[in-house]
Amino acid sequence: MLIPVILCGGAGTRLWPASREGFPKPFVRLPDGDTLIAKTIRRARSVAPGAPIIFVSGTGHGFLIRNALTAMGDTGAAQYLLEPVGRNTAPAIAAAALWAQQTHGDDTRLLVLAADHLIDDAAGFAASVRMADAAAEAGSLVTFGIVPTHPETGYGYLQQGEETAPQVFKVARFVEKPPLADAERYVAQGTYAWNSGMFCFRVAELLAAMRAFAPQVLASTIATLATSPPKANEITLDKESFGQSPSISIDYAVMEHAMNVAMVRAAFDWSDVGAWPALAATVAPDAHGNRTSYPKAGHQFVDCENVFIDSPRMVAAIGLKDAIIVDTGDAILVTDGKRAQDVKQVTEALKKSNPEMTKLHLTVHRPWGTYTILEDGADCKVKRIVVYPGASLSLQLHHKRSEHWVVVDGIATITNGDNVLTMKAGEATFIPVGAKHRLQNKTDKPVAIIETQVGTYFGEDDIVRLEDVYGRA
Amino acid sequence: MLIPVILCGGAGTRLWPASREGFPKPFVRLPDGDTLIAKTIRRARSVAPGAPIIFVSGTGHGFLIRNALTAMGDTGAAQYLLEPVGRNTAPAIAAAALWAQQTHGDDTRLLVLAADHLIDDAAGFAASVRMADAAAEAGSLVTFGIVPTHPETGYGYLQQGEETAPQVFKVARFVEKPPLADAERYVAQGTYAWNSGMFCFRVAELLAAMRAFAPQVLASTIATLATSPPKANEITLDKESFGQSPSISIDYAVMEHAMNVAMVRAAFDWSDVGAWPALAATVAPDAHGNRTSYPKAGHQFVDCENVFIDSPRMVAAIGLKDAIIVDTGDAILVTDGKRAQDVKQVTEALKKSNPEMTKLHLTVHRPWGTYTILEDGADCKVKRIVVYPGASLSLQLHHKRSEHWVVVDGIATITNGDNVLTMKAGEATFIPVGAKHRLQNKTDKPVAIIETQVGTYFGEDDIVRLEDVYGRA
Repeated sequence: MLIPVILCGGAGTRLWPASREGFPKPFVRLPDGDTLIAKTIRRARSVAPGAPIIFVSGTGHGFLIRNALTAMGDTGAAQYLLEPVGRNTAPAIAAAALWAQQTHGDDTRLLVLAADHLIDDAAGFAASVRMADAAAEAGSLVTFGIVPTHPETGYGYLQQGEETAPQVFKVARFVEKPPLADAERYVAQGTYAWNSGMFCFRVAELLAAMRAFAPQVLASTIATLATSPPKANEITLDKESFGQSPSISIDYAVMEHAMNVAMVRAAFDWSDVGAWPALAATVAPDAHGNRTSYPKAGHQFVDCENVFIDSPRMVAAIGLKDAIIVDTGDAILVTDGKRAQDVKQVTEALKKSNPEMTKLHLTVHRPWGTYTILEDGADCKVKRIVVYPGASLSLQLHHKRSEHWVVVDGIATITNGDNVLTMKAGEATFIPVGAKHRLQNKTDKPVAIIETQVGTYFGEDDIVRLEDVYGRA
Repeated sequence: MLIPVILCGGAGTRLWPASREGFPKPFVRLPDGDTLIAKTIRRARSVAPGAPIIFVSGTGHGFLIRNALTAMGDTGAAQYLLEPVGRNTAPAIAAAALWAQQTHGDDTRLLVLAADHLIDDAAGFAASVRMADAAAEAGSLVTFGIVPTHPETGYGYLQQGEETAPQVFKVARFVEKPPLADAERYVAQGTYAWNSGMFCFRVAELLAAMRAFAPQVLASTIATLATSPPKANEITLDKESFGQSPSISIDYAVMEHAMNVAMVRAAFDWSDVGAWPALAATVAPDAHGNRTSYPKAGHQFVDCENVFIDSPRMVAAIGLKDAIIVDTGDAILVTDGKRAQDVKQVTEALKKSNPEMTKLHLTVHRPWGTYTILEDGADCKVKRIVVYPGASLSLQLHHKRSEHWVVVDGIATITNGDNVLTMKAGEATFIPVGAKHRLQNKTDKPVAIIETQVGTYFGEDDIVRLEDVYGRA
């Protein structure tokens, strides 16, 4: 059995302001309206139909994955391994391998994918995965090497050794991010490939290699799984034992040391969407190289060249060249396209001056749905709240604000004090200060309300949770 | 008596997206938080204390002036001449002169100012006005010539003739917007000045000159005033007769022909804020020439040079040079500073593709206050409505929507069906489809409500006005 493992790490800084800590790159809307996580899930399902997908993510991102699956209508098997603290890829993959071994046995093969890679050629991907899977079955730890299109200095490289099967090579050498001159030579020689961070191996082989080369990682991960009780299809990894593991990549920990490492020369296109220009490149340009991710927004380009606009609002650009304009409602980025890597400087500065701006969007995603801040004034706060079918907010109360709820879509079940009301669009209720209340959706369609808070304080910390299905009470 | 006349024309296109047809340049927030109209009114009051100010504006802009005066706490005398159709400056000034003649006699002098000029040097301005007023009393039609700071090709020039008093010259010649080479020569020669569009003259002299050189303008304007009944301090000019006047500037109609024209060489700085760079120039730059109009927004400049950001939101700029970024919530402009005049191309295109975007902002100004669209969805529309002290919306009803009103600031007087309620912050009322309702502010402090509309259609044309203090019923 081949089981996909999707690694959903990421700090959410490279595509700021679209990505945030609470909403990292895999979840960001792409110009085609899709997301990297959805594309990755589809890719995984297509090469491993019927198998579960193991998702490894931070504890705060698990529900984003669940919501993505729901939005896709994906009802396939899924297993969540939630990291309370990030320890890089080696412990994450070790945890997935141990879970797969315990659940499906030593012969299980894992196909490790990143949640934020973009691959358009599904057939090429499937072909490469078949080759990798065959090599893995034969005992190799397989990595996917991407044929380089330019002398990128931001990636590691794999030097090809002997070809052991069509497009399958021994790895002669792992090369860390090289200086430009070396990268240029690698591309010219044609026997180097980018190290993609995707892998395929038998569980038994990987664990054996970890025992040999990364025993501390393995020991910590074994201890972690032993002390982390599974709950339905979710395991929140025990913070203390998982935190004991060295923070180390699977390349450093295992692949660079093992003798049985193979490389499949990828038959597909690939991008890690490492910065805004990569995302822009997914859009077909006009005759002047200008691109927009919201064609209906009516963006205006006057004498522009190679300008990308990512905004649902009206944006007019005049006389610009090689510029990228991103607007998320609460923040706007305007950067020279060649300087897009320096978005990091902005997020670093914001972490000090305005940290909220690096954490969440105006629309905040929650396990039960979303809320969008429409107005954040001194005298009131107004939100649009959307509740997913079957979902429920916590039973809660506030000390410093009353709330007015107007149902604008669907049929809501509303607890207000001792009453439970069924309310439809156009109906409203008033929740006094101190009254316990809850918003539920018992239907199979979304519910939306407009909430107007009036009072003296509107912070998220004035929520006393009395009951919560997500364990936050 | 010296009476200031403030001309408040303007299409609202040069400073788009901050200026709109319904909110032209004089009303746009400047980086210092002030507006050009407020600065102009202060300037006018200071040189003509105790005199009324005559405002000539489009019918749709009169209340913006009234609101500006209220916001400034200006309770001085004001007379409004509202143009149902713009006919350029000659008919506007003729109407002001006729009103002044009828009200204050032939000896009245008018000081004609534009509402959208920026002049910092109040003392220099006052000194020049004193000289102009003396020359006007002596029978001259006086124009203000600005000492040119650069060979601007966007302005007309005045060639100085004989100096008849200190800084007062005969005008040898009016020069239309010149080619660059000519403009450079004018600046070098030192005997040319920019034609500022500000004037000073006795009413009798102006009307005599109009009788001689622009009899059609004068006749139409006389007919207009005869058929336009005054209402308190406001005259809405009769559309039919006013429309008969040629559309012509005072320069073409009178000044270029009259023999008694004089020029005061201005002792003050001057800008007509004709495009974004002029507005940016009002802000002190940082060491790299970068400027922001909202210091508290925490704008980030990374390796930028000479970049101006006008946005209350967070904007990060990376690697830009000579750029201007303007954000109004519904629209964003990013332009090369040298191309800022081409904003006109954007507004021309928008008039065809998205005309609403050239007319109003998210915050719409009304005679009674403002409303701001917080959410404009398929299922609801949410507004923040602010009602000025003593003001009242019309008594109205809607056929296709119900409304929920939550008072969030002040004390509102609300008519809902047959009930009149006094409601304070935190209180709410539901207005069913078809119910007549009205929002009033009978206090001396602003009232604010959050309105949530639910229904099938949310257009402004689903308003049946039953009574309206502004004559819109």
